Amino acid sequence: MPVKSEHIPRATIKRLAVYVQVLENLIREGTDVISSELLAKACAVNPSQIRKDLAYFGEFGVRGLGYYVKELNTSIKSALGVDRVWRCALVGVGNLGKALLNHHEFKLRGFHIVGAFDCDPFKIGEEVSGLEVVCTRRLKEKVAELGIEVGIITTPPERAQRATGHLVEAGIKGILTFAPTRIAVPDHVFVEYVDFFHHLYALAFNLTLIEDEQ
Amino acid sequence: MPVKSEHIPRATIKRLAVYVQVLENLIREGTDVISSELLAKACAVNPSQIRKDLAYFGEFGVRGLGYYVKELNTSIKSALGVDRVWRCALVGVGNLGKALLNHHEFKLRGFHIVGAFDCDPFKIGEEVSGLEVVCTRRLKEKVAELGIEVGIITTPPERAQRATGHLVEAGIKGILTFAPTRIAVPDHVFVEYVDFFHHLYALAFNLTLIEDEQ
Repeated sequence: MPVKSEHIPRATIKRLAVYVQVLENLIREGTDVISSELLAKACAVNPSQIRKDLAYFGEFGVRGLGYYVKELNTSIKSALGVDRVWRCALVGVGNLGKALLNHHEFKLRGFHIVGAFDCDPFKIGEEVSGLEVVCTRRLKEKVAELGIEVGIITTPPERAQRATGHLVEAGIKGILTFAPTRIAVPDHVFVEYVDFFHHLYALAFNLTLIEDEQ
Repeated sequence: MPVKSEHIPRATIKRLAVYVQVLENLIREGTDVISSELLAKACAVNPSQIRKDLAYFGEFGVRGLGYYVKELNTSIKSALGVDRVWRCALVGVGNLGKALLNHHEFKLRGFHIVGAFDCDPFKIGEEVSGLEVVCTRRLKEKVAELGIEVGIITTPPERAQRATGHLVEAGIKGILTFAPTRIAVPDHVFVEYVDFFHHLYALAFNLTLIEDEQ
């Protein structure tokens, strides 16, 4: 059982998520052991980086052999707290919300979206991916009933803050938002922003530099 | 005209994208000038961080007044190369692909998705958000015809590498991928990964820490 560290830096968590992604693909392919060089290559980092990241919660790897795929995957997931099911509520059943409700990977990774919410009367009662869309005002009741711990916001930007208010009032302490705006939350609530545009900006910036050089 | 720097760090680009998001919301609301404190608060950083980030490409801000919203926004966008239109191809017209094709924000931010591609014969010819879905094998021809520079991958993970191959062969040098897997590209191609799960992992990790403390 790996020790839980309170001091895993953000950049390390990001890489650990990549390691899990690669390790789970290896498990599906039936690979038992992988050399540290091949694992590093598949994760697009160098082997010493992997060793450093894993050192936060234990010692892994066998000299001359590499890593046991399943064991390493289990240990990383346990250290991150993703070796269990997290029940999630999605607020905002538009195109993106529907796409996420139908996205198999969430369930595969332990994030079960068990409630879908919208304030549009035309959407309430609709069934999406086996879930009945419920009025956002009923969030508090449903969060308690369904044991929901994580909120996912896929509303338009102008409705993101209101969705946040409903989630916080319902006792949710972790929010993943896809809405292209910043949201304000109390100190005890964690927010993660999925921002497509900083990625597109980084691409545009790099492509512009190449063009300038040519 | 701000100077273009080759040395804007990745973390700064990420924050610059947030500043643009906040500044564009301010422009829509009709705000002309904003104090550095209020801008910093809206962006969830401190004022000295903003000054440091802007110093990469110029001097901004008026002592005792703050920032001119429009001027600052234009300068940041010019420095990043996002003050122009980038034409994009989307490969993989599933639920997520459709959601992105219908996502207004891409066009608003200068990223125009002008081609939609899929290898599924049942999807080819279908119209999504005003675009006819074209066979992925015709990517090279369409990229040249439509002046496409950026590729967006929304295929399932097992088809992401093939989509990458088609994009690279078509001459694309910048790829944004939503597929939950790593892809291999030649050295001259930039890849950005949109990974929902590292955000969910970061949330789960933080929520687990709180629970352990209680």
